[in-house]
Amino acid sequence: MVEEVNIGIIGGSGYTGMELVNILGRHKHAVIKFITSRSSDGKKVNDIQPSLQNSRFGDLVFKAVPEGDDYRGIDILFLCLPPQGSMDYVKKMGGKTGFRIIDIGSDFRLKDPGAYLKWYGVKHTMPGLLKDFTYAIPELNKDDIKKATHIANPGCYPTSVLLALAPVLKSGYGVDDIVIDSKSGVSGAGKKLKEMYMFGSLDNNFYAYSTSGHRHIGEMEQEIEKMAGRILKIDFTPHLLPVTRGIFSTIYCKIIDPPKQDMEESMAGIYQNFYKGSLFVRFTGSSVPEIRHTAGTNMCMIGLKYVGRTGTLKIFSALDNLVKGAAGQAVQNMNLLMGFDEGEGLVYS
Amino acid sequence: MVEEVNIGIIGGSGYTGMELVNILGRHKHAVIKFITSRSSDGKKVNDIQPSLQNSRFGDLVFKAVPEGDDYRGIDILFLCLPPQGSMDYVKKMGGKTGFRIIDIGSDFRLKDPGAYLKWYGVKHTMPGLLKDFTYAIPELNKDDIKKATHIANPGCYPTSVLLALAPVLKSGYGVDDIVIDSKSGVSGAGKKLKEMYMFGSLDNNFYAYSTSGHRHIGEMEQEIEKMAGRILKIDFTPHLLPVTRGIFSTIYCKIIDPPKQDMEESMAGIYQNFYKGSLFVRFTGSSVPEIRHTAGTNMCMIGLKYVGRTGTLKIFSALDNLVKGAAGQAVQNMNLLMGFDEGEGLVYS
Amino acid sequence: MVEEVNIGIIGGSGYTGMELVNILGRHKHAVIKFITSRSSDGKKVNDIQPSLQNSRFGDLVFKAVPEGDDYRGIDILFLCLPPQGSMDYVKKMGGKTGFRIIDIGSDFRLKDPGAYLKWYGVKHTMPGLLKDFTYAIPELNKDDIKKATHIANPGCYPTSVLLALAPVLKSGYGVDDIVIDSKSGVSGAGKKLKEMYMFGSLDNNFYAYSTSGHRHIGEMEQEIEKMAGRILKIDFTPHLLPVTRGIFSTIYCKIIDPPKQDMEESMAGIYQNFYKGSLFVRFTGSSVPEIRHTAGTNMCMIGLKYVGRTGTLKIFSALDNLVKGAAGQAVQNMNLLMGFDEGEGLVYS
Amino acid sequence: MVEEVNIGIIGGSGYTGMELVNILGRHKHAVIKFITSRSSDGKKVNDIQPSLQNSRFGDLVFKAVPEGDDYRGIDILFLCLPPQGSMDYVKKMGGKTGFRIIDIGSDFRLKDPGAYLKWYGVKHTMPGLLKDFTYAIPELNKDDIKKATHIANPGCYPTSVLLALAPVLKSGYGVDDIVIDSKSGVSGAGKKLKEMYMFGSLDNNFYAYSTSGHRHIGEMEQEIEKMAGRILKIDFTPHLLPVTRGIFSTIYCKIIDPPKQDMEESMAGIYQNFYKGSLFVRFTGSSVPEIRHTAGTNMCMIGLKYVGRTGTLKIFSALDNLVKGAAGQAVQNMNLLMGFDEGEGLVYS
Repeated sequence: MVEEVNIGIIGGSGYTGMELVNILGRHKHAVIKFITSRSSDGKKVNDIQPSLQNSRFGDLVFKAVPEGDDYRGIDILFLCLPPQGSMDYVKKMGGKTGFRIIDIGSDFRLKDPGAYLKWYGVKHTMPGLLKDFTYAIPELNKDDIKKATHIANPGCYPTSVLLALAPVLKSGYGVDDIVIDSKSGVSGAGKKLKEMYMFGSLDNNFYAYSTSGHRHIGEMEQEIEKMAGRILKIDFTPHLLPVTRGIFSTIYCKIIDPPKQDMEESMAGIYQNFYKGSLFVRFTGSSVPEIRHTAGTNMCMIGLKYVGRTGTLKIFSALDNLVKGAAGQAVQNMNLLMGFDEGEGLVYS
Repeated sequence: MVEEVNIGIIGGSGYTGMELVNILGRHKHAVIKFITSRSSDGKKVNDIQPSLQNSRFGDLVFKAVPEGDDYRGIDILFLCLPPQGSMDYVKKMGGKTGFRIIDIGSDFRLKDPGAYLKWYGVKHTMPGLLKDFTYAIPELNKDDIKKATHIANPGCYPTSVLLALAPVLKSGYGVDDIVIDSKSGVSGAGKKLKEMYMFGSLDNNFYAYSTSGHRHIGEMEQEIEKMAGRILKIDFTPHLLPVTRGIFSTIYCKIIDPPKQDMEESMAGIYQNFYKGSLFVRFTGSSVPEIRHTAGTNMCMIGLKYVGRTGTLKIFSALDNLVKGAAGQAVQNMNLLMGFDEGEGLVYS
Repeated sequence: MVEEVNIGIIGGSGYTGMELVNILGRHKHAVIKFITSRSSDGKKVNDIQPSLQNSRFGDLVFKAVPEGDDYRGIDILFLCLPPQGSMDYVKKMGGKTGFRIIDIGSDFRLKDPGAYLKWYGVKHTMPGLLKDFTYAIPELNKDDIKKATHIANPGCYPTSVLLALAPVLKSGYGVDDIVIDSKSGVSGAGKKLKEMYMFGSLDNNFYAYSTSGHRHIGEMEQEIEKMAGRILKIDFTPHLLPVTRGIFSTIYCKIIDPPKQDMEESMAGIYQNFYKGSLFVRFTGSSVPEIRHTAGTNMCMIGLKYVGRTGTLKIFSALDNLVKGAAGQAVQNMNLLMGFDEGEGLVYS
Repeated sequence: MVEEVNIGIIGGSGYTGMELVNILGRHKHAVIKFITSRSSDGKKVNDIQPSLQNSRFGDLVFKAVPEGDDYRGIDILFLCLPPQGSMDYVKKMGGKTGFRIIDIGSDFRLKDPGAYLKWYGVKHTMPGLLKDFTYAIPELNKDDIKKATHIANPGCYPTSVLLALAPVLKSGYGVDDIVIDSKSGVSGAGKKLKEMYMFGSLDNNFYAYSTSGHRHIGEMEQEIEKMAGRILKIDFTPHLLPVTRGIFSTIYCKIIDPPKQDMEESMAGIYQNFYKGSLFVRFTGSSVPEIRHTAGTNMCMIGLKYVGRTGTLKIFSALDNLVKGAAGQAVQNMNLLMGFDEGEGLVYS
C-alpha cells in the first residue's frame, strides 16, 4: 500500500467538488495536487467555501485548466463535470496515462451507447472506453472495483435505489412491478441560477419533475437487470424537496408467490444478512430512515415494510446526495482502488 | 335562499378551526354564533391567531362547551375533532335537532362499522347514524350533497387522491395496481407537541410514516370501489414534508389494454372534460402542479403523464390540506347544502 | 364616491405586482384595465401566479407596454418599478394626465434631489415633480393623502420603522441614539436571479447586507426629522432572513430625561392612544410581535420594552413586506385618495 | 503529554452532548468512559443520533447516573446541564476529586454570587467554588486556561459577542453605547417541547425574546468590564431564527474621539492583528460573515464596518452555537488543559 495518493480534480467548485475537497481534507493519504474550475479561476478553496478554512486544502488555488505538467505523478483524477463534460474532457486530454479516473459525472455509467443516446439525447463520443469504466457501488461489487481500470461513480438516485433493491433482487424471490418515488434536496441540481431553485420559489413548495423519464432510469434498469437476471422496467419519478441535502426513495414492488406468513420477518432477515458488516449501509428494520440522520455522512439507511393485504414490499432508503450519492462514494471507491481502508476519510459525520 | 346562516363550531382553536373562522370571515352569509375550545376557553379568536384581527369574527370568545341555549337557531354545526371525538360529541349532545352537522373529523366517513374498527382500532359507537352522513366531495357528488342531512367532510389525503383518480376510474378504461405516494405539510398533524414535529427535528428532514397502513386507506378504497364498480386495493404511503401547508400526491396506475397511441392526449381530454367548469379543480395537463400555487386557496391542481414504455399513468395532485383538504371544502359543502353560490367565501387566495 | 376605479398597472409580474392584483381581486370597486410586464408579455396573470385562478383578474393578459388608448378613462396608475424605473417611465409618458399615480417604487419619496443623488447614486431627472408626490403612510398623514395629487408609496423598511417610531417621536420625550436592526424575507429583493437568493444559499443561513448604508436611510431620516422636529441621524442595518415574506425591525433609542419610574407603562399608554382605532396597526404592549402573524395581511404589529438599567426604549415591529410594506399600503392609499373605506379589499388575511 | 484522556459526560443526550460525542469521536486522544442521560437511560448513542453510527463512540450506552466506580481514572468530566443543574450536580457528587470539570452549563461563569441571583433568579449554592472555575475563551485568555483547575465554558451568545468586541475594547479607543442584536437558531433552546419551537410555529417566522433582560447579559458585562477596564452596560436583544444552528450577532458601538479619517482601515488592522495566527477566528474585513459558513465548524467569523456619518462601529460575528458556542469550544479548552494541540478533533468541518 502506498502512503500517499496524488490527486487531481477537474471541475471542483460546484457542490460535489467542494464536498470532495472537504472529505479529502480528513483523508490521511490524500494529497490534492491541483483543482480546476473555469468560474473560480484564481480563487482559493476557502474563498468559495469558507467552512474549509482549516482544511489541509483550504488554501489550494483553482486554475482554469490543468497544464501538461500537472498530470505528472497523479494517481487519481476525479471528474466532477455535467453530462457530456466527462467524455469531452477525456477526448481532449488525449492519450494521457498513468492515472486512474474516477468519473463522478454520468458519461461512463451506461455500457450500451444506444442507451446513452436514448437517455441523454446525444451520441456517445468515446464508446470504446466504456468497458474500461467499472460501475461502482462498493457494497454491491467490491471485488470488481478493486481490479478496475477506471471508475464510473453511480448517480445519486441510482445509489439510493440500487442499495435498497439489491437484497430482494438477489434473494431468489421473484420481483415485479417496481415503482420508485424519489425525493431530492436541491443541491442535486447543482448551482444553476434558475427561478425554480430560488428560495422564494422552493420554500414551502414541493413537486415532481422529469415526469416522463429521468436520465437515471437507464442506469437503474441496467443494474437491476444484472441483479435480477432479467429485464425489469421501472416506473421512476423524482421530486424536489425544500431542503439542501438528502435523497429519500420510497420503493414499491410485488413479491411473486410470497409465503403465506412471516414475509416481513423473512425479508428483514435477508436485508440484515446482506448488509451485515457493511460500514456504510445501515438496515433499520421496520423503522423508517430519515434524511437528517444521513446528512453529512456516507451512510445509506434502509428500512422496509411488507404489506400483506396487497402483497407489496415497500423499501425506504435515505442518504446524502452529495456524500454517499456522489463525493463520499467516490472516495470510498478510491480507497478500494488504492488498497486503503474502505472508510478512510469517511467515518466522521 | 336564506340571507344568513347561523353557525356553531366545536373544537375551533386548532389549525382547521382557525382556517374555518378565517374563511367564514369572508363569507357574506355566515354568522358564527359560538365557537368552543377546551384549551382556549375565555380567549379571543385573534389572541390565538392575531392575523384574524380584522376578521368579522376576530373578537369572538372561545367557550369550553356550548350551553343548551347556544344550539337555538343554529343552522350548521361544524365539528373539528380528532378520531372518536365526533361520535362521542354527537352521543353526548343527545337528541338535539334543527341543524345540520358538517363533520370535518373522521368518524362518519366509513359506512361500514367493521371498516371503522379495522382502520381506527375501536368500535364505532353510533353506527345507526352513519347513513345520515353523506361523504362529500363536491366535484364528485354534488347532487347528493345538496340533499344531504349531515356531511362527512373527507380527509385531506383522500381528497387529493380521489379528485386525481375520479376521471380515469369513471372513464371506462380498466385500471389496476394503484400506488399512491403522498407528501404532507406538518399542519396535517395538528398542534400536537411531539419531538418529531419540532423545528429542529423536521427542518431539512423528510421521511415516510404510517407505512404499514394509514387510516385514510379505508376511506379511499371505499370511494374508489364506488367509482370503479369493483374492489381495488391500493398501496398508500404518506410522508412528512418540511413545510407547514400542502399535500402533493403522486399516483401510479396501470391502464388495462391501453390503445397503441395517443394515450396521454386521450387521457388529458378525459380529465379536461371531467373538470370543465369546475371552480376549484384545475387540470394542468402535462405540467406538474406545485403545492405553493394552492397554498391558502381552495384549489386542487391536477396534472398527468402517461409513460408508454411501462404502460403506467402517473397522476399528480396538489392542494392545501387545511383548505381544500379540510375547512375550505367544508364551507364549499355548506354552500351547497344551503343553496349559496358554491364559491362563496372561497374564491380569494 | 365613484362606484368603480379604473386601474392601470405598470411592471406587474413581480412579487409586488402580483400581490397588488391579488388584493384588487377582493376590492369591490377595482377594475384593472391593463397590466404590463416586459418579461411576461402575452401571458395571463394566472399563468404567472396560478393561485389567482379564481381572482376576478386571473385571466388578464400582460402586455409589454401600454398603448395610447389604454390610458383613457384610467383613474389610478400603479407603478411597480425598480429604482430609476418610475422617473424614466413618467418622463417617457410625457404629458399624460387625468389620472393619479401611486408609485410603489422609490423615485419620488425623497423630496431633496441631492438626497436622491446621495442614496441612489444617480441624478434625479424629474425634480420638478417631487412636490406633486405625497409621501404616504396612512396612519401618519391621512389628511395629506386624501388631498394628494400623486402618491409616493413608502419603502418596506421605512414603513416598519416609521410606524414604530412615530408615537415616541411625537410624544414630547426627547429621543436620541436611534439604532435600527431590521430583518427581511427574501421577497423584498424581488425575483432577481443571484446566487445569494438561491435556496441552497439561503436555507439555514442569515447575514447582514448593505452594511455601510442602505438606500432607505435617506427616506427614514427625512420622515424622522419631520416628526421629531430636528435632524436625527440613524444607524440602520438590514439582514436577510431565510423566509419568503416578512420584516421584523428591532429599534433601540435613548429617552432623554426619562421619569424615574413607570416609563414603560407611560410609553405603552402613548402607543396605545396613538393607534387607538387604527385598522392596520396593532399595539401589542410588552408582547413581542411575530412576522407569521402579519403574513398575508396589511397589519403592522408593534410592541415595546423599556429597559431601566440602560435607559433604552426597545421597539419591535412586524409586517408583511409585500402587503403593508408595498402593495397593501398602496391600496390603502388608493382608498383614501378615492374616498373608499380605508380597509376596502384589505381586511382579509 | 498523556496519550489518552479519560472522559465522563453528564447529561449527554441533548444537542450539546451529542455534538460533544461527535467531536470526541474524531479526537485522537479521547476515550469516553461513561455518558449519562436520565431520559435516554439504556439507549445507545447511535439510537439517539443515527449519524454517529460509525463514530468510535456510537455504541456507547447511556446510564441514568454514574456509579461510584465510574469516576476512577477519569481525567475530564464534562457537564451538559441546564441552569442550576451543574451546581446541584457538583454538590451531590461531594468530594470526588482527581479530575477536572469542564462545565458547559451556566452555573460557574458569573464570579459574583449576587450577579447569579440577579440574572438567574436563584441563590448560588456553591459560591466557594466559583474561584476554581476559569471563564474560558481560548482566544482571549489562553494562559489562564492552561493553568485552570476547572473550566466555566462560556455561553453561546457571549462567545459570539466577546470575540467580536475584544479587539476594539483592548485597542485603546474609547468605546460607548454598545447595542447588541443577536439572532440564534432554535437548537440553542435545546429539545424542550414547547409550541413556540414546533415547525408550524417557527417556519417562516422570526421574533425577539427575553426582551427585558436575557441571562447572558451578566456574563457579557462581567467580561466586557475586564477588557475595557471599566463598567460598560450593554443593550442586548436575542431573536429566534427559523434555522437549526447558528448565531449571528450585530454589534453597534460608538468610538469616542475617532480619528478624522481611515477609521475603518485602522480598525481592520487592529482586528487583523489581534486574530493573526488564530486557528478558529477568521476576520473577514468589510465582508459580512454568514452563519452557513460556520455550520458544523469551530470557527467564529468576524467582519466590521465603520460608519463615519454617525461615528458608529458595526461588528458582525457568526458561529455555530453548538460548536464554537458550546461543545467545540469545550473541547478546545480541554485541549489546552491537557496540553494537546489546540485544534485536535476540531479542524474538520
